[in-house]
Amino acid sequence: MDELHEECGVFGIISAQPCECVGYTAAALLSLQHRGQESAGIAAEADGRILSQKDLGLVTDVFTPSVLSQFKNNKVAIGHVRYSTTGSNNVENAQPIVTNHSIISFALAHNGNLINASALRRNLERSNGIVFHTTNDSEVISMYIIHEMLKTDSIEVAIRNAMKVLKGAYSLLIMTNDKLIAVRDQIGFRPLCMGNLDGATVFASETCALDNIGAEFIRDVAPGEIVSVSLNGNVESLQADSVPQRGLCVFEMIYFARQDSIIDGESVYNARIQMGKFLAMQNPAEADIVCGVPDSGIEAAQGYAQQSGIPYGTAFVKNRYIGRSFIAPSQIAREKAVHMKLNPLRASVKGKRIILVDDSIVRGTTSAQIVRTLRNAGAKEIHMRISSPPFLYPCYFGTDIDSSENLIAFNKSIEEIRKFIDADSLEFLSLANLQKIKQLPQTSFCSGCFSGTYPLDVSGCSMKEQFEGC
Amino acid sequence: MDELHEECGVFGIISAQPCECVGYTAAALLSLQHRGQESAGIAAEADGRILSQKDLGLVTDVFTPSVLSQFKNNKVAIGHVRYSTTGSNNVENAQPIVTNHSIISFALAHNGNLINASALRRNLERSNGIVFHTTNDSEVISMYIIHEMLKTDSIEVAIRNAMKVLKGAYSLLIMTNDKLIAVRDQIGFRPLCMGNLDGATVFASETCALDNIGAEFIRDVAPGEIVSVSLNGNVESLQADSVPQRGLCVFEMIYFARQDSIIDGESVYNARIQMGKFLAMQNPAEADIVCGVPDSGIEAAQGYAQQSGIPYGTAFVKNRYIGRSFIAPSQIAREKAVHMKLNPLRASVKGKRIILVDDSIVRGTTSAQIVRTLRNAGAKEIHMRISSPPFLYPCYFGTDIDSSENLIAFNKSIEEIRKFIDADSLEFLSLANLQKIKQLPQTSFCSGCFSGTYPLDVSGCSMKEQFEGC
Amino acid sequence: MDELHEECGVFGIISAQPCECVGYTAAALLSLQHRGQESAGIAAEADGRILSQKDLGLVTDVFTPSVLSQFKNNKVAIGHVRYSTTGSNNVENAQPIVTNHSIISFALAHNGNLINASALRRNLERSNGIVFHTTNDSEVISMYIIHEMLKTDSIEVAIRNAMKVLKGAYSLLIMTNDKLIAVRDQIGFRPLCMGNLDGATVFASETCALDNIGAEFIRDVAPGEIVSVSLNGNVESLQADSVPQRGLCVFEMIYFARQDSIIDGESVYNARIQMGKFLAMQNPAEADIVCGVPDSGIEAAQGYAQQSGIPYGTAFVKNRYIGRSFIAPSQIAREKAVHMKLNPLRASVKGKRIILVDDSIVRGTTSAQIVRTLRNAGAKEIHMRISSPPFLYPCYFGTDIDSSENLIAFNKSIEEIRKFIDADSLEFLSLANLQKIKQLPQTSFCSGCFSGTYPLDVSGCSMKEQFEGC
Amino acid sequence: MDELHEECGVFGIISAQPCECVGYTAAALLSLQHRGQESAGIAAEADGRILSQKDLGLVTDVFTPSVLSQFKNNKVAIGHVRYSTTGSNNVENAQPIVTNHSIISFALAHNGNLINASALRRNLERSNGIVFHTTNDSEVISMYIIHEMLKTDSIEVAIRNAMKVLKGAYSLLIMTNDKLIAVRDQIGFRPLCMGNLDGATVFASETCALDNIGAEFIRDVAPGEIVSVSLNGNVESLQADSVPQRGLCVFEMIYFARQDSIIDGESVYNARIQMGKFLAMQNPAEADIVCGVPDSGIEAAQGYAQQSGIPYGTAFVKNRYIGRSFIAPSQIAREKAVHMKLNPLRASVKGKRIILVDDSIVRGTTSAQIVRTLRNAGAKEIHMRISSPPFLYPCYFGTDIDSSENLIAFNKSIEEIRKFIDADSLEFLSLANLQKIKQLPQTSFCSGCFSGTYPLDVSGCSMKEQFEGC
Repeated sequence: MDELHEECGVFGIISAQPCECVGYTAAALLSLQHRGQESAGIAAEADGRILSQKDLGLVTDVFTPSVLSQFKNNKVAIGHVRYSTTGSNNVENAQPIVTNHSIISFALAHNGNLINASALRRNLERSNGIVFHTTNDSEVISMYIIHEMLKTDSIEVAIRNAMKVLKGAYSLLIMTNDKLIAVRDQIGFRPLCMGNLDGATVFASETCALDNIGAEFIRDVAPGEIVSVSLNGNVESLQADSVPQRGLCVFEMIYFARQDSIIDGESVYNARIQMGKFLAMQNPAEADIVCGVPDSGIEAAQGYAQQSGIPYGTAFVKNRYIGRSFIAPSQIAREKAVHMKLNPLRASVKGKRIILVDDSIVRGTTSAQIVRTLRNAGAKEIHMRISSPPFLYPCYFGTDIDSSENLIAFNKSIEEIRKFIDADSLEFLSLANLQKIKQLPQTSFCSGCFSGTYPLDVSGCSMKEQFEGC
Repeated sequence: MDELHEECGVFGIISAQPCECVGYTAAALLSLQHRGQESAGIAAEADGRILSQKDLGLVTDVFTPSVLSQFKNNKVAIGHVRYSTTGSNNVENAQPIVTNHSIISFALAHNGNLINASALRRNLERSNGIVFHTTNDSEVISMYIIHEMLKTDSIEVAIRNAMKVLKGAYSLLIMTNDKLIAVRDQIGFRPLCMGNLDGATVFASETCALDNIGAEFIRDVAPGEIVSVSLNGNVESLQADSVPQRGLCVFEMIYFARQDSIIDGESVYNARIQMGKFLAMQNPAEADIVCGVPDSGIEAAQGYAQQSGIPYGTAFVKNRYIGRSFIAPSQIAREKAVHMKLNPLRASVKGKRIILVDDSIVRGTTSAQIVRTLRNAGAKEIHMRISSPPFLYPCYFGTDIDSSENLIAFNKSIEEIRKFIDADSLEFLSLANLQKIKQLPQTSFCSGCFSGTYPLDVSGCSMKEQFEGC
Repeated sequence: MDELHEECGVFGIISAQPCECVGYTAAALLSLQHRGQESAGIAAEADGRILSQKDLGLVTDVFTPSVLSQFKNNKVAIGHVRYSTTGSNNVENAQPIVTNHSIISFALAHNGNLINASALRRNLERSNGIVFHTTNDSEVISMYIIHEMLKTDSIEVAIRNAMKVLKGAYSLLIMTNDKLIAVRDQIGFRPLCMGNLDGATVFASETCALDNIGAEFIRDVAPGEIVSVSLNGNVESLQADSVPQRGLCVFEMIYFARQDSIIDGESVYNARIQMGKFLAMQNPAEADIVCGVPDSGIEAAQGYAQQSGIPYGTAFVKNRYIGRSFIAPSQIAREKAVHMKLNPLRASVKGKRIILVDDSIVRGTTSAQIVRTLRNAGAKEIHMRISSPPFLYPCYFGTDIDSSENLIAFNKSIEEIRKFIDADSLEFLSLANLQKIKQLPQTSFCSGCFSGTYPLDVSGCSMKEQFEGC
Repeated sequence: MDELHEECGVFGIISAQPCECVGYTAAALLSLQHRGQESAGIAAEADGRILSQKDLGLVTDVFTPSVLSQFKNNKVAIGHVRYSTTGSNNVENAQPIVTNHSIISFALAHNGNLINASALRRNLERSNGIVFHTTNDSEVISMYIIHEMLKTDSIEVAIRNAMKVLKGAYSLLIMTNDKLIAVRDQIGFRPLCMGNLDGATVFASETCALDNIGAEFIRDVAPGEIVSVSLNGNVESLQADSVPQRGLCVFEMIYFARQDSIIDGESVYNARIQMGKFLAMQNPAEADIVCGVPDSGIEAAQGYAQQSGIPYGTAFVKNRYIGRSFIAPSQIAREKAVHMKLNPLRASVKGKRIILVDDSIVRGTTSAQIVRTLRNAGAKEIHMRISSPPFLYPCYFGTDIDSSENLIAFNKSIEEIRKFIDADSLEFLSLANLQKIKQLPQTSFCSGCFSGTYPLDVSGCSMKEQFEGC
């Protein structure tokens, strides 16, 4: 697949009065669905126990009205949507993961990826005889929390102690019968925010989930912070060991997050508009129309149009009804198949010089098809503009940016890529310009996929050895 | 429901060599899915018999890879997607309808609505003892064709004879084991076009379905025309009795059809751009940004922006993952629920004077919610512009424009509507200006919902008495 | 398949007060399940309409608690279980068949088989343009009733008129919104009885269905009789044209009916005990034990044991959990596969001389396997006794006794059959002795499958041409 | 529920050559279905991994042809059918339980019940931080095996070490990728036997499962024995610590096992015949006919008839089609509802003096209904004979014989029970006579439910505290 995928979104709620926690969670997950479309799950407190429902599919597939109606009102719930990196897409790996133990029972939902999950798992297996039921690093985190609970009465302390050995990206939501705990790794790779819904406390991967259910934004969870909320709404905050540096994944701003979210204080929409504007300043072109590749290039294209003064227009109609599993007739040649999802708007592009903006190029095959499609629809010139630098290095922290050999920019020069996709010109936003955009949350974000410099030591990490992150 | 729905799309294919007719049909229906999301069905020739598969749901729900794999290669197939007017949404009423009879077996798919179905059905019941199995007017058409087949050997002649009594809108595809026949009523209310796919002949409600599978457009089927194609590709055309006047439903151009379709020679996209431009000339306003209500107001908004010189921007993020059946938590107040589908893009609209363009207003409740949402997100002024005249009269020809008492424009003046939706200003494109748009296929289209003047006599027609059209 | 199958059972109920008609019908069908295991269906009056639920599978598969709970209390219901003769086992052919027409709406359930269904169907198709939706002769009967309703106001008269052309076996239950009508063909091939359930009137194929729901037996429906019961319990009886002779299918007494049923005044159990006794008198043998083949030979074996004084014992354990669709591993040789269903009781048969009683032999392959199994389990001698005469002729009246070439007795002498199944001796009850059994309802039953003499002229009837009977 | 239930059956197979292990296992489970009807499961080796399929329902529900076809040929498989004692009937508790660990992966299927599962589980949770995923004592056994595997390389040694702490009844099958291990507790409460299938080695709860697939019986697994079979067919036997005494559950012979099984060398059928004969000698009665309650009293009734010389007959027809979930109409009074399952054969019982034999009486309500039903059907006298002593004490070893207060014999004298069920006379087989039956495997069986004397110390055991046994 020639597309990038985020890996997971989380949401949680705790309320003094029993309410439709599961309904709110399902509604919130709907607006986090862009972060993961493979499985959906919710765990909720019910009469002192933790029940969960999870399955492969979209939120609306898993949480049908009849499933939702089986949940009574309750006081705590967490939910999860998932895209798996390594392909073992099975229901056992769906989250939240519920852990029942005579000391404590809890459910855990995870967005991110540990880079030392394998070693941690082996350690627990061999020293204590622990048996794992999934290939998910979320279960490794859960077992370490239980492991630490043997030595302390406080789950917050147990979590902080576990964080000493957990290496990687993790934004976690953990619920017990009477607590909801949010945890963000010390680097802050993935977003996590906190809100208020008519007195109930909620946490979500992105603020658009708060909007969706009418909750008010309170604040972001800080890197390295453990925020624990009790039924009566008391909030306790612990901080894990010293934070080396912040490192929000820059691709959250470029592509993963929804454009109406505000992450660590900055608007994703504004950041993308700025990327388009910087790109227009960096690489102008003469053209009749500026178009974005739906849906990922739309905002950057609008920014480019605003900066350049060239009119913004529509080049493609995207078919919203093509599901993941739909299989095109084998006789429809690959070049034609792209029409099924993106049909060129001939009346708009015929005879035009077009600036076409997209967020990134992974393998280049999709870009090549898109350019060919536009040419066949009569476009005169196609100037491709990418609102991020070229991918040169893999990501170890929860996205599926692949090993270098599969990245076209690792293997070809920009001119070679231009020839491969057959554009009249091709330009990428430079890393230097990307760093100038003031809407990026802080000067220090993680841009390892462009630079090869990561906030954590990844030596010895292999993509193959990795566990299922989320 | 405060939304308009088209009622049905059809596609058919006939090929000298057995091919993936069913796969092509499913792929084509995907691009007609906007015309009907309640049921999907395909009938296909298989070893001399006609097999069909149909069910409630989207094309991808009904035609899963495992269902598609059950169909072998074949030579003829027709398909249908459906939205039902009168609410009896059950699988018996799904199409195509297969009629097995010792004289002839055929399948029929219908887009439109008969206005005399009740009388025709009663006539066949009482004179001949015919038993009907659906409440669908497509079955009435099928029974009349059989009735006429008792008197002639030619199905084309039987169809032409049946057309003498069929009153209303109908674009039909009819298949036998070795023929594919396309029929369009004498007024031409609904679109129907013909194409070529590597030697096979195809018909579709809209040209976007041809693009989708890589077929080339040949021509539109003319009002009153019967086009019969045999396995070897021979095309015969018969014409029904004299055509009083053409009358394509103008709402196909305004809203129903997909923007990349060309209907009766004119681009839907261009027509909508023109509607926006005329609206900008007719009712200008001072503003910072022009936005469209997703998805129906996007093109007219672009036209308005182009004409007025005011920048085009995005006001709402639409959640693509909310399905038909998703039920919001009851505690989410109605006003908040609209956020689930359309979340305002605060970073874009805050402090702005906005021109908001939509295609129509039915009951006004959705418009009121949208305006309120924008105000809460910080918009300073909201100037609503509608790219069609006000609805004053019901539609009898296959859309669900309701009886007058449910149409806000029938009951309130424009100023009263403006107050109801709480916009700073509100304007509709005038019927006079609509008629000036040269991209509307011909001077004589059906605009009965605006004017109350219909191309056929509708006296005596009641919405209640009507059958299920399609 | 080397087994005989009955084709269908029917049940109906009408009550002045709304009651659990559907629940009673489902319960009654359970005790008629031996008459058909392929599909089950119930139609019931609901607020002036007739609703039906039918599907492939056993009664408990189709009428799950959740399905039953969807039916409210009502006043009239009929139900049906089905085994199809000709193999087209699809849900369209399930019954009851509901006919909605502006003159009258009714549902019909049928046990039996018309021998002129093909000709009748063709006649209605060609003269009136009638379209059929099933390949079921029950639909032909329904259409003839509608056809006659065009000429009279009385459904009872219409039924009597239709009976003039219907040729064959049919025990029918017909319901409208306010009537329940039972019809038995003039010969009386298939049983049909009437009962009282706390004031409600019920009809059933067999009396065991009355016992099952606690209803009292009133009387049998007479051959050629139409019994019409209204909501208030009024009973009207019409008689069709003169009855040539009675002709209950003798195999109802030998095998089809449940042993606790009373048909046309005689106990099925007693008849089978008598068959065993006559067989013991006709063909005695020296043996240690008399065993029946489960379940069809059990009663005749008990009769044989009583008459001969040889102890009755058990030879086989039948596995009750083997479903229709279970497929044995391909590596289990055919001879071993019979153990899965019938395992020999070694402790009981080892070293014994056994008289093994069964009701009939069709192709002989099952008998051969059973004899081989007993020998392998250590039986010393096996004397096979069959409680009916040899099958020599096909049945046209609703059972699947096949065309002559597939009947082993048509092709081989009794001695040849004995060798084929490898028994030490083999004897069949003679037709002469069968006719002496006073528990057979009357001297004139239909024994066409033994004698080739049928109560109706079957010349020109071909098994292949036949419709789906039931 | 007024019925006894056995808890579980197991089957396993290991073959040098890949074969239809899963197909054989499914076929074998079919003949063990009487031991458990709530869930079915199979685990099998597949390319070095262990795959499992398990679900609620009968074997034919879970292992449909399409499910079976997904398994390729393989070398090792084990299967399980289950009835749960304590009512938590959910799919998580279905077996086999697969344990994946970096030291060893294995699957385990269990028939029996531990009496110290709670304490064992708590110990592992608190000392090692082990997390349990079921409430099943089979998981406790699995975790103890892993726990012992930390200290040894041999799974057989680990099992023997675990057996030191496991207290209770357990017949286990354990598979790895290349071994199949059978384990029977030191008392030998539950049966377990070994067979040969064309070179492959198989184990099963009962010999009828060997017959079913055409395997030959080799020998029983001895109490306290661990039999380990490798792919090449090598058999190793280890013995656990000294065996105090043997103690096969006597109810296996009375009721649980299938009548064609041979357990620990003795025929179940012969044992039941003997129970009937002893009962006839102990408590004769004048009568016309001896009948058994289907299906549990049939063989003892035959023995009674043989001993007494009174003819054996049929009193009830059992409806084989009533599933577990079928719900009778609420209007069918409880007394009538029994007819749905057991309809009296009026023609057989009317006017007769009947000896009615059953295997046991638990609460007495079913017996009372059966007697009343026979009286209503015209029986003159009913003499009830029970082929086992009265239940006075609960069972802790894997059957659901309840706590004493629910056992009618604990609360009433035999005369009081006779009055309660309204029989003309009632007698139970005495424990002294039961012990005289030479077909009972050895003098020392477990008859704790009659005597209160158990082969293991049960002090401190409470029914409520117990885990899910199997």
